[in-house]
Amino acid sequence: MNRKVKNIELNRLSPDAFKHVQKLPLCLILDGIRSLQNVGSIFRTADAFAIEAVYLCGITGTPPHKEIHKTALGSEESVNWFYEKDIVTCLHNLKRREYLIASLEQTTESTFLHEFVSSKPIALILGNEVDGVSEEAIAASDICLEIEQFGTKHSLNVSVSAGIALWHISQRLRNKV
Amino acid sequence: MNRKVKNIELNRLSPDAFKHVQKLPLCLILDGIRSLQNVGSIFRTADAFAIEAVYLCGITGTPPHKEIHKTALGSEESVNWFYEKDIVTCLHNLKRREYLIASLEQTTESTFLHEFVSSKPIALILGNEVDGVSEEAIAASDICLEIEQFGTKHSLNVSVSAGIALWHISQRLRNKV
Repeated sequence: MNRKVKNIELNRLSPDAFKHVQKLPLCLILDGIRSLQNVGSIFRTADAFAIEAVYLCGITGTPPHKEIHKTALGSEESVNWFYEKDIVTCLHNLKRREYLIASLEQTTESTFLHEFVSSKPIALILGNEVDGVSEEAIAASDICLEIEQFGTKHSLNVSVSAGIALWHISQRLRNKV
Repeated sequence: MNRKVKNIELNRLSPDAFKHVQKLPLCLILDGIRSLQNVGSIFRTADAFAIEAVYLCGITGTPPHKEIHKTALGSEESVNWFYEKDIVTCLHNLKRREYLIASLEQTTESTFLHEFVSSKPIALILGNEVDGVSEEAIAASDICLEIEQFGTKHSLNVSVSAGIALWHISQRLRNKV
């Protein structure tokens, strides 16, 4: 009989086992995310897809924080994260380590997410809820990625966008699409 | 020069034009979603992917509501929605209209989302933040879909899951993957 799986049956990793598991060659850079709830939700998604790290830049809040914990539900302790005040320094360091720097932003030269492929490890920048990715981060990016949209609103919620982009890129990295 | 696109340049549809545009053969059923913020965020995503309708069931809050508006940002007025107290009645009506009923839930017989294809229009059920999709909705489903996860937590935030599922299914329906 088809029934819901109990949490224990999911056999999820312990935070300690997670530290040692192989990660996807993919990290996130949060470029001034204002809402701690969005930060927490992004941690939860980063955990689910086992990405390498999350870089918190500028005004982005950092763990430990009660508001982040409410939506991260403990994933802020499993996911590898760093705070780097200056995003340009952060991106410069990732470039030296051969990462492709990709901004999730609608620009005059953006590539649709569904057409994106990369042979290099990927550093994906997510921007502020109102202003999007900063001009300096876009200038330092190798590519801008856009989620094709068909409705009336200009953009998606940033933690929803992060989920879509992490899903799609991880599907590519795992050769599922 | 690569620069951010201004909102006006995105040429999004007006709410009135959106009403008349062809929709994807895909609708969402919210099975007792507790958080009005999640309801609003799901409306925003439903607008972006131009799906047919959102059915709000059981305890799920309905527009107009200030808390829904905060995250829906007006998409609760563009997206076609209905309130149906009893989800089983809702699913029964959709089945008669030849929809495939799919629950987004981890069950003993669930199919991975990335392996899912359908030749029928799809009605996708999203469950409560704590309890997931209800047993009665699972019993009335033709299939259960699971987002494969590799981390320590048991699930994703429901509005993030909705975003991933709508993205993936709409990519299939638009023949992008």
